[in-house]
Amino acid sequence: MSTIVIHGSTRENGNTEYLANQAVHDDAVHIYLRNHQIDGIIDERHSEHGFKPIDDDHHLIIDQMLAHNVIIFATPIYWYSMSSIMKTFVDRFSQLVREPGYESFKEDLQQKEVYVIAVGGDNPKIKGLPLIQQFEYILQFFGSSLAGYLLGEAGKPGEIKNNSHALSEAHLLKKKLKRP
Amino acid sequence: MSTIVIHGSTRENGNTEYLANQAVHDDAVHIYLRNHQIDGIIDERHSEHGFKPIDDDHHLIIDQMLAHNVIIFATPIYWYSMSSIMKTFVDRFSQLVREPGYESFKEDLQQKEVYVIAVGGDNPKIKGLPLIQQFEYILQFFGSSLAGYLLGEAGKPGEIKNNSHALSEAHLLKKKLKRP
Amino acid sequence: MSTIVIHGSTRENGNTEYLANQAVHDDAVHIYLRNHQIDGIIDERHSEHGFKPIDDDHHLIIDQMLAHNVIIFATPIYWYSMSSIMKTFVDRFSQLVREPGYESFKEDLQQKEVYVIAVGGDNPKIKGLPLIQQFEYILQFFGSSLAGYLLGEAGKPGEIKNNSHALSEAHLLKKKLKRP
Amino acid sequence: MSTIVIHGSTRENGNTEYLANQAVHDDAVHIYLRNHQIDGIIDERHSEHGFKPIDDDHHLIIDQMLAHNVIIFATPIYWYSMSSIMKTFVDRFSQLVREPGYESFKEDLQQKEVYVIAVGGDNPKIKGLPLIQQFEYILQFFGSSLAGYLLGEAGKPGEIKNNSHALSEAHLLKKKLKRP
Repeated sequence: MSTIVIHGSTRENGNTEYLANQAVHDDAVHIYLRNHQIDGIIDERHSEHGFKPIDDDHHLIIDQMLAHNVIIFATPIYWYSMSSIMKTFVDRFSQLVREPGYESFKEDLQQKEVYVIAVGGDNPKIKGLPLIQQFEYILQFFGSSLAGYLLGEAGKPGEIKNNSHALSEAHLLKKKLKRP
Repeated sequence: MSTIVIHGSTRENGNTEYLANQAVHDDAVHIYLRNHQIDGIIDERHSEHGFKPIDDDHHLIIDQMLAHNVIIFATPIYWYSMSSIMKTFVDRFSQLVREPGYESFKEDLQQKEVYVIAVGGDNPKIKGLPLIQQFEYILQFFGSSLAGYLLGEAGKPGEIKNNSHALSEAHLLKKKLKRP
Repeated sequence: MSTIVIHGSTRENGNTEYLANQAVHDDAVHIYLRNHQIDGIIDERHSEHGFKPIDDDHHLIIDQMLAHNVIIFATPIYWYSMSSIMKTFVDRFSQLVREPGYESFKEDLQQKEVYVIAVGGDNPKIKGLPLIQQFEYILQFFGSSLAGYLLGEAGKPGEIKNNSHALSEAHLLKKKLKRP
Repeated sequence: MSTIVIHGSTRENGNTEYLANQAVHDDAVHIYLRNHQIDGIIDERHSEHGFKPIDDDHHLIIDQMLAHNVIIFATPIYWYSMSSIMKTFVDRFSQLVREPGYESFKEDLQQKEVYVIAVGGDNPKIKGLPLIQQFEYILQFFGSSLAGYLLGEAGKPGEIKNNSHALSEAHLLKKKLKRP
């Protein structure tokens, strides 16, 4: 079981990153979307010429993502949904599935265990639920289902370190990921 | 009652735009986010120096938005939530409320009637509900509440024109917006 | 297209009933659960002897329900979900699908168009959404999907008659049900 | 901190009961709704004479409930929401708040920590979320908010005993309830 975490935070060492780090083993690979160039999608699904190729880091990240068994989307909750850089990354799936080399993206994803870890400051255990439902719909689109999720509450930097309940839940998730 | 529509589509004359246009009167003002430069937020809420000023079109659009009584967020449903350019626009609210000149953004928004119009191809009346709940939470954060929403189903370009139920619902909304 | 309305109100001539009546044609058949004896389920799915036969009106109502093409569940929103008599009716499905004569209940339901009409006093367009999602899950369990829903706001008796938006939406639904 | 569990299962020793028992300390008080007579509500909020007094066990259970600091609603997930006996119990709140002796029900509830434990067989971590949102709305109605929830997956009798993740989550909750 090899794990990759796709981080959607825009600041370093934030609460979401901290919590995600508690949930994974040392050999997990970490991708920080903020350190990459990912252009926004322009919907050309129905135009004659199709999508224009984009020269950014999207393929690079996708390739790394698909090289692991467990994928964790770790996003701070901004305005009750995933961060805009995470959303920009996800929206590009619409182009990806029409690009050469990614014909089997759907089947590939079905082989993965996908988790969401999200941290927010405003009652995330309740107000983060629509975000979870959306990730579930995304997975269902690809014929799969979320393997699990973790919603943690924290606002100011470092606050998550005092949220013992969230940390315990992260450790539970870590135990679940340790299977041989 | 003056109305502004914030369009989150990435292609011209898409289904969402068409449906939104059916719902508003001729004097409505239209903002197309795809024609504007809006940078992504970098969360500096808790850094010493605070947010760095950004020289893009966000203030311009916000100023126009606040000049109207009725605000309609019209977004295609990409992966079961708002488009990434719409999300990028929304995420910047976190910076906005800390910027000089926008101290009363919360109170200003409370005076508005806010609607969401969203169109998607995959059972949007059900799978678009988390998106609606998120907009409601956003409004609640500002001490307000959504005045209404419209979820329409369409996939291929032009398809919405044949969705008589969605068009009728748009006309209902139009009647509601016509009050003197 | 013949229509049956299953009413879950506990008082006569309530707002939900009124709104449902606006949405259906004169030849619709109406079942008022409050006028029937429906016992609560006792979960015996896994007991040796299975469910004990119950001598009440559940079969009678189900038989009528299955004799129509369009089924409308019309429930007041009590505490953000369906009324308890409606829930008692629904919970018995677990027994029904194991009873002789109802082996094809799933396939039968798949042939129906199912709608939900729900009226509540506390922001039902938002706070009624979990109820709609639950009905969708119920339909999905049977391999189907909701054909539509209508959420209306009203509190005091008769208040719905002044909710012109809800009435217009009911008339839209009526038009949709009129197909030959 | 004294705890009461309101059980909504219709069978003895079911999965929900088992999981709830893992989450509470030995001194918790348990109420099994199935062993009590609770009549359905008849909505008389707006009738001249008001609600008719009902001679059943509702007051008795409410009185016990209010005698504790922590209230846990433990319900099996039947058709994606609470069991009908639990719903019957909850619906009666509408009458209760109008009955002599319960004028401070709202304020009383605000002093409580309220949790939901729910177990279902069909992807409860996702499909149980509307149920959680509904309980949150109920608590919000009383000016409060859910303190937490636990969604466990199990179908056949005893299955929950093999769901080590759910059991660990129950133990986490137990630790949280142990504060002096």
